[in-house]
Amino acid sequence: MILTVTLNAALDVTYEVDTLRPDTSHRVRRVHRRAGGKGVNVARALAATGCGSVVTGFLGGPTGAAIRVELPAGAVDRFVGIAGDSRRMVAVVPAGRAEATVFNEPGPTVTDAEWQAFVDRYTELSAGAEVVVLSGSLPPGVPDDGYARLLRIAAGACTILDSSGPALMNGLAGRPDLVKPNRDELRAATGHIDPAAGAAALRQRGAGAVIASLGRRGLIAVTGQGGWRAAVPGSMAGNPTGAGDACVAALSVALRDGVDWPGALADAVALSGAAVATPVAGEIDLDVYRRLRPIVAVEALPC
Amino acid sequence: MILTVTLNAALDVTYEVDTLRPDTSHRVRRVHRRAGGKGVNVARALAATGCGSVVTGFLGGPTGAAIRVELPAGAVDRFVGIAGDSRRMVAVVPAGRAEATVFNEPGPTVTDAEWQAFVDRYTELSAGAEVVVLSGSLPPGVPDDGYARLLRIAAGACTILDSSGPALMNGLAGRPDLVKPNRDELRAATGHIDPAAGAAALRQRGAGAVIASLGRRGLIAVTGQGGWRAAVPGSMAGNPTGAGDACVAALSVALRDGVDWPGALADAVALSGAAVATPVAGEIDLDVYRRLRPIVAVEALPC
Repeated sequence: MILTVTLNAALDVTYEVDTLRPDTSHRVRRVHRRAGGKGVNVARALAATGCGSVVTGFLGGPTGAAIRVELPAGAVDRFVGIAGDSRRMVAVVPAGRAEATVFNEPGPTVTDAEWQAFVDRYTELSAGAEVVVLSGSLPPGVPDDGYARLLRIAAGACTILDSSGPALMNGLAGRPDLVKPNRDELRAATGHIDPAAGAAALRQRGAGAVIASLGRRGLIAVTGQGGWRAAVPGSMAGNPTGAGDACVAALSVALRDGVDWPGALADAVALSGAAVATPVAGEIDLDVYRRLRPIVAVEALPC
Repeated sequence: MILTVTLNAALDVTYEVDTLRPDTSHRVRRVHRRAGGKGVNVARALAATGCGSVVTGFLGGPTGAAIRVELPAGAVDRFVGIAGDSRRMVAVVPAGRAEATVFNEPGPTVTDAEWQAFVDRYTELSAGAEVVVLSGSLPPGVPDDGYARLLRIAAGACTILDSSGPALMNGLAGRPDLVKPNRDELRAATGHIDPAAGAAALRQRGAGAVIASLGRRGLIAVTGQGGWRAAVPGSMAGNPTGAGDACVAALSVALRDGVDWPGALADAVALSGAAVATPVAGEIDLDVYRRLRPIVAVEALPC
């Protein structure tokens, strides 16, 4: 069983507008709502590939209720209720464009009792999990070392931490099996411009393996078994939103199934590409996945 | 009793951000929520001056529930429930700036049965009203001549219609006692660049009197008793959001109390200025009102 954890879940709201003009009023042509937060998006990518999951984290208030009914099919809802109202993430998308202007609400503060209720729920769930995926930011009220604590509790499972900034760096003390920063997050966290050097720094701090996404240049992996780079030949146009979560979904399945790193990287690059190829953020085009999977180029990095 | 009607009520949400940069992600520093829609804002301005009101229109879903609990104190809630979820209006305000970038959701569609339930409620409420204020746009599902029908039902009261575009133009057939377009709405509705000519055109179409807001240049009135222009000497800095609704609030009280047009104009200019002077959109600084009221200059227009 794959367990995805979304402590800072959100209702993803997309506003379609004609054009975005600062300091003016806009008529929103269409409103789309979807359950979001990175762990929920991983569960959606898993569901698109026919893989079920258990989803947990915090949900509360009317926005939490709206998130709950929009959770992906195939994801078993084990979220913990909180008193606060869950946050929204509003993405404004002008007609005919892929770029979104995004507004992230701060989200409700989690109380000590709510955090403890979550830890109890998570302890039970992670004991039955083959892979535990910890995704996204920590909401206000959760301890700074929250991810380190959760990683220690899940020591019997394979663990993936996909976060950034202090939540990522403090989480490394919990020795995650894999962390998946993107290039910007890696640079911000380590100060290294070279992704391989940044990845090595994260391993020194406690990460078992590091797979960093480099956008159109694919993935780089630095692990105890060696280093690799994987990419699709040529360039892909599309909507990059959700590619990182599709990547994590593929990696979680590969960890569960004991796939070697080159195979895991190829799966992850192909599923990310299948997410980029769909116009709707976070959806997956399985035909694209099947087409890309055999042509992903994986090469070993010089040691 | 003053009855304000808000058929397209909204939850006004303000996002404070550091700066607005299109095509990037923003951390929202603070979120403010308030009941909105122009008729609700009129009720809030009335409440700020110590004047109660009855508020009606449509509210539904979790957003409707959030609007209901945020209605201004002093406003008696007689909104009609609908199945759809009420809309949000999201205003993004960078730190230290008055200009907002606003996103208006389209709002839920009102069913025939819901419209009829509203007409029944409104018929009862307007029979006991001295002044009926009809504000804002018509939601999807309400007949195009909705305001004309409501104006005919309220023929025993003084009526104010504050709308724009087709909702305004179709409403004129109901012969409102007063309409209050702003300069842009007047020009868009009539094609006249000269506000006095535009106001005369609206009177020909059925409006008893027209008071148009000209921003910093104050108000112009074209009535059956003559024409006037009213403004505060000098210019006022501040947040113009809500000035129009404060203007309508002052006019509704003046109509109720039988104040003559020059007196009504002076009240409306001073209360609008008291709204502009507060940093929070839609609030009123009564000290500013008392200071401005004696210095508003009202002059008759040449016939």
